[in-house]
Amino acid sequence: MTQDLSGGATTDSYRVHPIGVVRSPRTVPVHDHWGSVSAVLELDADRLQPDAVAGLDLFSHLEVIFHFHLVPESDTVTGSVHPRGREDLPRLGILAQRLKERPNRLGVSRCELVGVDGLTLYVRGLDALDGTPVLDVKPYQQIFQPPPEAVREPTWLRAAMSAYYF
Amino acid sequence: MTQDLSGGATTDSYRVHPIGVVRSPRTVPVHDHWGSVSAVLELDADRLQPDAVAGLDLFSHLEVIFHFHLVPESDTVTGSVHPRGREDLPRLGILAQRLKERPNRLGVSRCELVGVDGLTLYVRGLDALDGTPVLDVKPYQQIFQPPPEAVREPTWLRAAMSAYYF
Repeated sequence: MTQDLSGGATTDSYRVHPIGVVRSPRTVPVHDHWGSVSAVLELDADRLQPDAVAGLDLFSHLEVIFHFHLVPESDTVTGSVHPRGREDLPRLGILAQRLKERPNRLGVSRCELVGVDGLTLYVRGLDALDGTPVLDVKPYQQIFQPPPEAVREPTWLRAAMSAYYF
Repeated sequence: MTQDLSGGATTDSYRVHPIGVVRSPRTVPVHDHWGSVSAVLELDADRLQPDAVAGLDLFSHLEVIFHFHLVPESDTVTGSVHPRGREDLPRLGILAQRLKERPNRLGVSRCELVGVDGLTLYVRGLDALDGTPVLDVKPYQQIFQPPPEAVREPTWLRAAMSAYYF
């Protein structure tokens, strides 16, 4: 699998191992109204020390990386599709939208951190189904975000997503 | 590796495959001043159709998921460390900071999208070294961010990171 490119680059694949699992009341795909959903991240004590979450409660929000595990690899899109299956909207490339049927089936979502009890994290507004494997948890820090006034995006897509959280 | 949990959960590991590589003038780890760094994402035509990036230029910023490929798996931290190696700062759990020596060695960073030329993306402010394998590219959309006024984080950590971009 190794393809040596100049500069030490590699196109090696590698194996990722869940560090926990999402427990959510949502068990089947739903488009909207994720903002009020309470969920739990059960982190794996075999993969993390108890102090892996030390100081996490200093942050109001998390960034969670997870695996869209219910999407078969054969369903992934490598070209473009209509957002949300709506043919009235322009086609967008898979990298220009956040559809789950994407190469590597990796999700990245922000959510509120409501509480920490050992390796159990209580969250709100996480758009991941029950049983979703968690690959990473990071603190949400403003310094890593672009300034809101610098962000440009299509207004029609924003309108199509307006009920996503609330 | 399968461990069946209730509710269809799984702790299966799975293999991720780079969809491209970062070309950057930065070839060795550097802490700060990433904001002005221009880089290129060379996406892989064997893994993506040309229209995988259709409409991407409607967005000002990207979210890039990548592999910290220079970190040996044996170096990953499963407990807590002082941020940036500074013993004057309180220890933080690996999940409460964005250190690269983390389980699964996954990075998530935002950057400006400067231009699109086929499967070549020109970006600015991406904090990834030359040769970094790219696992996913997503558009940056405000609706998926928490409201800035709701975000709480430690002021001392914010101060320690103040030169990260500029």
